[in-house]
Amino acid sequence: MTTLSALLHPDAFLSPLAIDAATLRALDEDLGRAGDITSIATIPEDAKARAIMVARHAGVIAGLPLAFATLHRLAGDIEIAAHCRDGAQVEEGTHLLTIAGPARAILAAERTALNFVGRLSGIATLTADYVRRTAGTDLRICCTRKTTPGLRALEKYAVRCGGGFNHRFGLDDAILIKDNHIAVAGGIRPVLERARAHAGHLVTIEIEVDTLAQLREVLDTGLADVVLLDNMDIPTLSEAVTIAQGRVVLEASGGVTLESIAKIAATGVDYVSSGALTHSAPNFDIALDIEV
Amino acid sequence: MTTLSALLHPDAFLSPLAIDAATLRALDEDLGRAGDITSIATIPEDAKARAIMVARHAGVIAGLPLAFATLHRLAGDIEIAAHCRDGAQVEEGTHLLTIAGPARAILAAERTALNFVGRLSGIATLTADYVRRTAGTDLRICCTRKTTPGLRALEKYAVRCGGGFNHRFGLDDAILIKDNHIAVAGGIRPVLERARAHAGHLVTIEIEVDTLAQLREVLDTGLADVVLLDNMDIPTLSEAVTIAQGRVVLEASGGVTLESIAKIAATGVDYVSSGALTHSAPNFDIALDIEV
Amino acid sequence: MTTLSALLHPDAFLSPLAIDAATLRALDEDLGRAGDITSIATIPEDAKARAIMVARHAGVIAGLPLAFATLHRLAGDIEIAAHCRDGAQVEEGTHLLTIAGPARAILAAERTALNFVGRLSGIATLTADYVRRTAGTDLRICCTRKTTPGLRALEKYAVRCGGGFNHRFGLDDAILIKDNHIAVAGGIRPVLERARAHAGHLVTIEIEVDTLAQLREVLDTGLADVVLLDNMDIPTLSEAVTIAQGRVVLEASGGVTLESIAKIAATGVDYVSSGALTHSAPNFDIALDIEV
Amino acid sequence: MTTLSALLHPDAFLSPLAIDAATLRALDEDLGRAGDITSIATIPEDAKARAIMVARHAGVIAGLPLAFATLHRLAGDIEIAAHCRDGAQVEEGTHLLTIAGPARAILAAERTALNFVGRLSGIATLTADYVRRTAGTDLRICCTRKTTPGLRALEKYAVRCGGGFNHRFGLDDAILIKDNHIAVAGGIRPVLERARAHAGHLVTIEIEVDTLAQLREVLDTGLADVVLLDNMDIPTLSEAVTIAQGRVVLEASGGVTLESIAKIAATGVDYVSSGALTHSAPNFDIALDIEV
Amino acid sequence: MTTLSALLHPDAFLSPLAIDAATLRALDEDLGRAGDITSIATIPEDAKARAIMVARHAGVIAGLPLAFATLHRLAGDIEIAAHCRDGAQVEEGTHLLTIAGPARAILAAERTALNFVGRLSGIATLTADYVRRTAGTDLRICCTRKTTPGLRALEKYAVRCGGGFNHRFGLDDAILIKDNHIAVAGGIRPVLERARAHAGHLVTIEIEVDTLAQLREVLDTGLADVVLLDNMDIPTLSEAVTIAQGRVVLEASGGVTLESIAKIAATGVDYVSSGALTHSAPNFDIALDIEV
Amino acid sequence: MTTLSALLHPDAFLSPLAIDAATLRALDEDLGRAGDITSIATIPEDAKARAIMVARHAGVIAGLPLAFATLHRLAGDIEIAAHCRDGAQVEEGTHLLTIAGPARAILAAERTALNFVGRLSGIATLTADYVRRTAGTDLRICCTRKTTPGLRALEKYAVRCGGGFNHRFGLDDAILIKDNHIAVAGGIRPVLERARAHAGHLVTIEIEVDTLAQLREVLDTGLADVVLLDNMDIPTLSEAVTIAQGRVVLEASGGVTLESIAKIAATGVDYVSSGALTHSAPNFDIALDIEV
Repeated sequence: MTTLSALLHPDAFLSPLAIDAATLRALDEDLGRAGDITSIATIPEDAKARAIMVARHAGVIAGLPLAFATLHRLAGDIEIAAHCRDGAQVEEGTHLLTIAGPARAILAAERTALNFVGRLSGIATLTADYVRRTAGTDLRICCTRKTTPGLRALEKYAVRCGGGFNHRFGLDDAILIKDNHIAVAGGIRPVLERARAHAGHLVTIEIEVDTLAQLREVLDTGLADVVLLDNMDIPTLSEAVTIAQGRVVLEASGGVTLESIAKIAATGVDYVSSGALTHSAPNFDIALDIEV
Repeated sequence: MTTLSALLHPDAFLSPLAIDAATLRALDEDLGRAGDITSIATIPEDAKARAIMVARHAGVIAGLPLAFATLHRLAGDIEIAAHCRDGAQVEEGTHLLTIAGPARAILAAERTALNFVGRLSGIATLTADYVRRTAGTDLRICCTRKTTPGLRALEKYAVRCGGGFNHRFGLDDAILIKDNHIAVAGGIRPVLERARAHAGHLVTIEIEVDTLAQLREVLDTGLADVVLLDNMDIPTLSEAVTIAQGRVVLEASGGVTLESIAKIAATGVDYVSSGALTHSAPNFDIALDIEV
Repeated sequence: MTTLSALLHPDAFLSPLAIDAATLRALDEDLGRAGDITSIATIPEDAKARAIMVARHAGVIAGLPLAFATLHRLAGDIEIAAHCRDGAQVEEGTHLLTIAGPARAILAAERTALNFVGRLSGIATLTADYVRRTAGTDLRICCTRKTTPGLRALEKYAVRCGGGFNHRFGLDDAILIKDNHIAVAGGIRPVLERARAHAGHLVTIEIEVDTLAQLREVLDTGLADVVLLDNMDIPTLSEAVTIAQGRVVLEASGGVTLESIAKIAATGVDYVSSGALTHSAPNFDIALDIEV
Repeated sequence: MTTLSALLHPDAFLSPLAIDAATLRALDEDLGRAGDITSIATIPEDAKARAIMVARHAGVIAGLPLAFATLHRLAGDIEIAAHCRDGAQVEEGTHLLTIAGPARAILAAERTALNFVGRLSGIATLTADYVRRTAGTDLRICCTRKTTPGLRALEKYAVRCGGGFNHRFGLDDAILIKDNHIAVAGGIRPVLERARAHAGHLVTIEIEVDTLAQLREVLDTGLADVVLLDNMDIPTLSEAVTIAQGRVVLEASGGVTLESIAKIAATGVDYVSSGALTHSAPNFDIALDIEV
Repeated sequence: MTTLSALLHPDAFLSPLAIDAATLRALDEDLGRAGDITSIATIPEDAKARAIMVARHAGVIAGLPLAFATLHRLAGDIEIAAHCRDGAQVEEGTHLLTIAGPARAILAAERTALNFVGRLSGIATLTADYVRRTAGTDLRICCTRKTTPGLRALEKYAVRCGGGFNHRFGLDDAILIKDNHIAVAGGIRPVLERARAHAGHLVTIEIEVDTLAQLREVLDTGLADVVLLDNMDIPTLSEAVTIAQGRVVLEASGGVTLESIAKIAATGVDYVSSGALTHSAPNFDIALDIEV
Repeated sequence: MTTLSALLHPDAFLSPLAIDAATLRALDEDLGRAGDITSIATIPEDAKARAIMVARHAGVIAGLPLAFATLHRLAGDIEIAAHCRDGAQVEEGTHLLTIAGPARAILAAERTALNFVGRLSGIATLTADYVRRTAGTDLRICCTRKTTPGLRALEKYAVRCGGGFNHRFGLDDAILIKDNHIAVAGGIRPVLERARAHAGHLVTIEIEVDTLAQLREVLDTGLADVVLLDNMDIPTLSEAVTIAQGRVVLEASGGVTLESIAKIAATGVDYVSSGALTHSAPNFDIALDIEV
C-alpha cells in the first residue's frame, strides 16, 4: 500500500495541513448538502470498484497526494497503489495510481481528485517545458505571486515538481522594491537604505529596474541582493550581465515565452520569472478509468 | 462611492459569504505572518495613493466585487469608484475602478485583487467568445465541474458573467448517469427506473449516451429529462436532434472548441458543455496603475 | 467491529465532512473548557465501561453514525457493535449499539450522542408515521426548508431514513416561484418565462398557486415542472389532479396532519410537503445503559 | 433604526460571536453555492421590498437578534424597526419587526430568519407556559443539556427569554454525580469526598438520588450543594422537602408536564428541570408578510 | 507504544478537540507556506532519526500530549515512548519522551513541540513551587483569568498539573462581583440580591471586598458563597478568617509571592489566587536531542 | 475618535486578519456559552461607563489595536480615544486609552483587552531594555521562534514595538543549518552546497557553528549569508568578528542576558538572538480604571 508521503515530490514541500484544508474545501463544494445522489440512487452500497488513474498525454505529474487524501476522506477502506510520484515525467497512457474500494466513494471522489491532479500537473508540465529549453545553462525558472487565490502553496509546489524555483510565497518573504517605492522614498539609494535599515538579516532585498542606468545606480549602492530586470530585450539583458559582473543576482521578467526562453538563458541572467507558469497553464488531461 | 453589490453582475449570484471567505483566504496567503514588508519599510504610514484598475486588452470583466472586498479588508478608509461592473464588455485600456486611500494598504492588496479579477475575467472572456460564435442560435454554453478546487462558486459566477450557463454546481444538484452507473444497474431502463424511484420531484435526471441506439433506448423509457451526447461528431449530433424531436433536452460534450462551436450550434442541440471554460481559460491581463 | 459507514442508511447520503463538523461543534459546546469534571473527579482514569444504547419506545432510528463519531472523537480505543442501522424500525427496548471502552470517555460522550440520535430519530419516526398512513398509494411525503438552523443536512437525512423525500436543500436547488415573484414579474406567464430564460437545463421550476384558475394558467404556459397547491381543501386538490392530467407534478402543502394525510393521498397528488416533519418532531427517547 | 442589542433580552446573554457563527452557518446552508436563484431570475436587482414579521399566535418571542443579523448579512442597506424585543409576550397578529430594503436580499433571508425566530420562540413559549403555571410559588423551571446539537447557547438563551433558568451549559459547569459515579466511587460519601477534593471553590456539586434514604445519606455528609430528586412522585417530593429542611437546594426531574408542574411546585422543591423545554418544543409560527 | 491519553495528567482535563486546534494553529504558523526548507534541502527523504526529549532542569512537566500530537500531525509513522506523563516531578536530565521516525518530520516538529512543553511546564513548575511552600496546610493555590489569549484551557490544565486549582475559566463560570458592580447596584446587599435572583442553582457567587467592614456586611446577608479578600495584609487576612467562622469560603489575592505564600497559608484562608502563575511563569528549558 | 490603524506601530506590521482571529478566539474563551453573567445580573442594560487604561509602571506599550478590536467586537457604539500608540515609551500612570460606552460591554471586554496589552507590552518592554543597553552600537537584538504557540505574529510584532528585529517567522523564512543537518549531509561544504542548490534567490542561508574552526570552514565556502555563533564566550565572539572580516553577517546566541548584552555588543557581532524576549518576558501590569 502506498502512503501519502510516498506520493510527494522528494524535494518539495507540501504541508499535510495544506492538503487537509484543500481537500476538505474541494470535497465540500462538490458534495454539497446531498452528496453524490447519482451513485446513491444507482450503485448498491456494497459494490466495489477498481480504478486506474491514467495520463492522457505526456508531461510532468503533480498533485497525487491530493488525490490520495481526497479518496481517503470519503472511505477509510480504499487501497491505493502508486505507479509514480509527483515530479514524474510520464507518457500518454502512463498509469499513475490504481485504486480499489467502495464504488460509491470512488465515484464521488473522482472529479475532485482529477481537478487537483489536472491543474497541478498542468503547471508542472508547463514549467518543465521551460526548464527543458534551458537545459545545459544555469538559468533557473521561477514563478510569481500571480497564482490562483487560495491555492498558492499548491501551485508553488507544482512549479517545484516541474523543476522550477519559487519566487516570493507572499509579501512577507522578501523585500521587492518597485517604481512606486522608489518614487516615494526619493530615489534608488534612499529606498535601499530605508529597506536595509528596516529589514532583518534574513530578509533578501530585490529591486526592480527598467534601465541599465538604474542598474548601475543600484550596483553603486551595494545594498541590493537581487535586481529584477523588467521587460528588457535580449541585448539589454546581455549588457546587464556584463555590467553586474556577478555582484548581484539578476532576474529577468517580461516577455518570457517558450520561444524566447533559450535566448534569455544565453544572456547569462540567473533567474527568469513568469506569471504564466501558474496563471495560464492549460489543464493536464487525466482520466480515471473505473470498473465497478 | 460604489458599493460591493453595485459591482456584482445583475443576474448572477455570488454570495457575500463566499466573497468573505475567498478574500480572507487569499489575503492570508499573501500577507503571511509579516505582511507587506516592502511597503512598511519604504512608504510612510500616512502616504495616500490613487490607483486605476485598467484592462490591458478587450474582453469581459468578472471579479470586481472581490477586488473591492480585498481592498476594504486592508483599510476601512479606501474609496472606490466603479466605471463598470461584472459582465461588462471592455476594450484595451478601459478603466474599471478608481481607488483612493492609504498607499500601504493599496499596495498590499494589489496582487490579490488582480489575481481575482484576472482569473475570473479570463473565464468570462473565454465564455463570451463561445457565446458570440453562437449568436442567433438557441444554443446555450455551459461549464462543468472541472473547476479549480475551492473556487467553484466564483468560477461558475464568472461563466454567467460571460453569458454562459451553469451545469451542476456539485454532485448533489442533479442526477447524471454515466456508463458505470448503467453497467452496474443492468442497463438504461433499470438505471433510469432506479434513479426516478430515488429522486425527489425537484431533481433533474440526465443520462450520458455514446450512441444513437442508446439515445433511442433512453427516449423509449420516457424517464430522462436531459441526454448528454458524449463525443459525437456533427452529423451524429444532427441525427440525435432529429430522433429526439424535443422530447428531452440535448446536451453535447466533447470536442468543443472555438472552431467547432458554430457547427455544433447548427445541429440544433440545446446545450454544449465544456470544461475548458473554467480549467484552461488564460488569465486576463489587468493592471493597477498606482500613483502614490 | 462496526464501522461508521455500516451505520448509515443504505440509500441516503450524509457526508463524512458533515458528520465531522457536527460532532466537533456539539462536543465542543458540551465539553466547554474544563470538560467532564464529574467523571474526572470520581471515575478512575483506567476504569472501563460497557454501555447499551436502547430505544425507549417504538419508532424509526436515525443518527447512529453521529453517535459513533462522537464516541470515537473522545477515545480511540472504543469498540462499538451495532445491532441495527439508520432507518431501522425498532420496538421499545430494542438494543441499538453496544459500546465498550474507557468509562470517562463514554460518560463524557453520552449526552451528545443521545442528543443526535434522539433528535434525528424523532424526525425519522414522525416521517415514517406519515408514510405508513399513505401505504398503498403513490403519494410521497417530503420535508421543507423549515429545519433547525445549521442542521439541515442532518435533518433532511433523517427524513430519508423515515421513508420520506426531500424538497429543496436550499435556495439554489430549484426555482420555487411564490406570490411575490409572480406579482413583481407581472403575472404567471411572464414570471415563468423569466425563470426559464434564466435557469439552466438542470434546474427544475416549481410555482405555487392558490387557486385552480392559477393552476390552469400555469398549465397553459407549459413552462412549469411542478405546481405547489397551497392550502387547498381535499375536493379542490382532487379537482386539481383532474385538471392537471399528469402534465405537471403536483405537490400539496398546508393543513397536512397525521389525520388528513390519507385523504390527501386519495386525491392523487404526487407529493405532500410539511415543515412539521423537521421543525416540530418530538424527541425520540433513547437511553444509554452504562455499566462501569 | 433598531440595533441588534436593542433586540436582545435585557437580562439574558447571547454572545455577538455566537450570533455571527450561527447566522453564517445557517445562511451558508440555505444559499448553497448558487444562492436564491428564484429571486435572481424573477426580481429586478433594484426592486425594494417592505416586510412585516408577524406572530401567528400568542406566545413569547425569542430570536429577533438572529433575524436581524441574518438580514444584515445579505444587504448592508436594510432598515429594521423593532416593535418588540426578545422576551416579549405577544398575541396573534402582533407585529415584531418592520423591514425595508432590497427585495432580493429580504426574500433570500426570509426562511433563515424565520427558522431562528420560530424555533427559539417555540422554546420561550413552552417555558413561559410552565412558568405561568407556577406563578405565586418559588419554584424555578430550568432546562437541561438535552438541546439541539450545535445550538445550545441559543436554546438556553430562549429558555431565559421565557422566564426559565438554565441548568449546566456543559459538562464543565458543575459537578453532577449520577448512579454510575456513585457506584464506581463506592458509595455516596466517598463520591462526594472525591468530588470535593477535586473541585475548586467555584464549582457547585449536585448529586442525583432515587430514594429518600439516599437523600438522607447525602444530607449526612454535608458535602452536596444541590440534590437532584429523580423520578419521585409528588408525596415523595414533599417528604424530601421536609427531610432536607433547606440544607441543600432541591431539584426535581422526571415526569414534569404542564399538568403536573403546579403540584410539583406545591411540594416546595426549589427547581424543576425538563429536557422537553428544548428538545420537544413545537415550532412557533411566524410569518413574514412581504410587499415588493 | 505510548498513546496520547497516557500522557495526560490523570486528574486534569484537556479536551482532544483543544489539542487538535492548538497543534494545528501552532504548526501552521511555523510551517508557513513553504515548510521546513532547511531539512528538505539537506536531509534525505528517507532518513530516520531518533530523538530524546530531556528536561534541562528540575520541575514539573506539562504539555507532553501536545508534543505527541504535534509530532503525529507531521508523520503517521512516528513512534513515541513515554518515560513520564504530565504532572511528573523531574530532575535535570530526566528523559521525558523517546521519539523515532522520519528525520524531516521530527526536525520540523521540534520547535513547536518544545514551545508547548516549555510554556506549560513553566506554569506547572511555578505552581508546584507555590504548592510546596504551603505543604501541610489546607491552602489551595489557584490561577486567574490572566492567561495568554487563546491558550486558557491549556494554561489552566498546566496549573492543575502543578497541583494548583482553577478559578473561573471564563466570565460565565461563576458570578464574581467587584467594586463597580457593587457601586452600580447600590451596595453589597442589593448587589447580592440581584445576583441571587438572576443566578441559577449551579452558579456560585463570589464577591470581592477591600475591608473587614465589607466582609461583615457580606456575611450578614448570607448570600455569598465565596469572598475574595483583595490586597489585605497578613494580620487583616487572619482577622478575616476569625470573622468569617467558616460561613463562606475565603480567597486571598494581591501581594502573593513565593515569599509571602506560607504566611498567607498560616492565616487560614482557603484559597489564594495569583495571575503570575500563568502570565509570568518563566519558560521551562526542554531540549530535544536528535540523532539522525 | 481613534481608529485601529492609528494604534499600530508605524513601522511594524500586524495583519488585520490576525487581529480578527486573535480577538475572536480570546473573547470566545472568556465569554464561554453564557457570557458575563455577573454584569448581566448586576448592571442595568443601559448603563454607560467610562474607563481609562493606565500603565502601572514604566515601559514600552504594545497591543493597543487588539484592545481596540476586543472592545469593538462587544459593542458597536464604544468610543475610544488614544493617548499613545504601540511603541510608545510610557511612565507609571500614563494614560493609554480612554473608553466610553455601554458598561456591560466594557466590563466583559476588560480582562481580554488587558491580557493582550499586558503580554505584548511585557515583550516590548523587555526588548527595549536590551536595546537600550546597546545604544550607540550597531548591534541588533532579535527574537527567535521560541514564541507562545498560536501567538507568533503578535509576539514578533511586540518585539518590533520594543525596537528589536525579527529572526525567522517560521521554518520557511530562511534556511538555518544546524549540527544535525551538517552531520547528515557530510560536512559544512556539502551541506551548504545542497542548500544553495535547493534554495531560490530570495532565500537567505544561515549556518550555526560552535567553533572558530567551523566558522573558518564556512567562510572558505563563500556559500553562507549569515553565521550563527552558538554559545561562544566574549573573547571567542571577538575573534570571530576578526576572522569574518565582514564577509558574512554574524549572529550570536546563547548566554544572552541583560548583564552580558553590552559586552556582546562590544565584540562587533551584528545580531544577537534571544528566546527569552518572547518566552520569558514578565507581564506588563496594565489597569483599566472603570467608572460606571
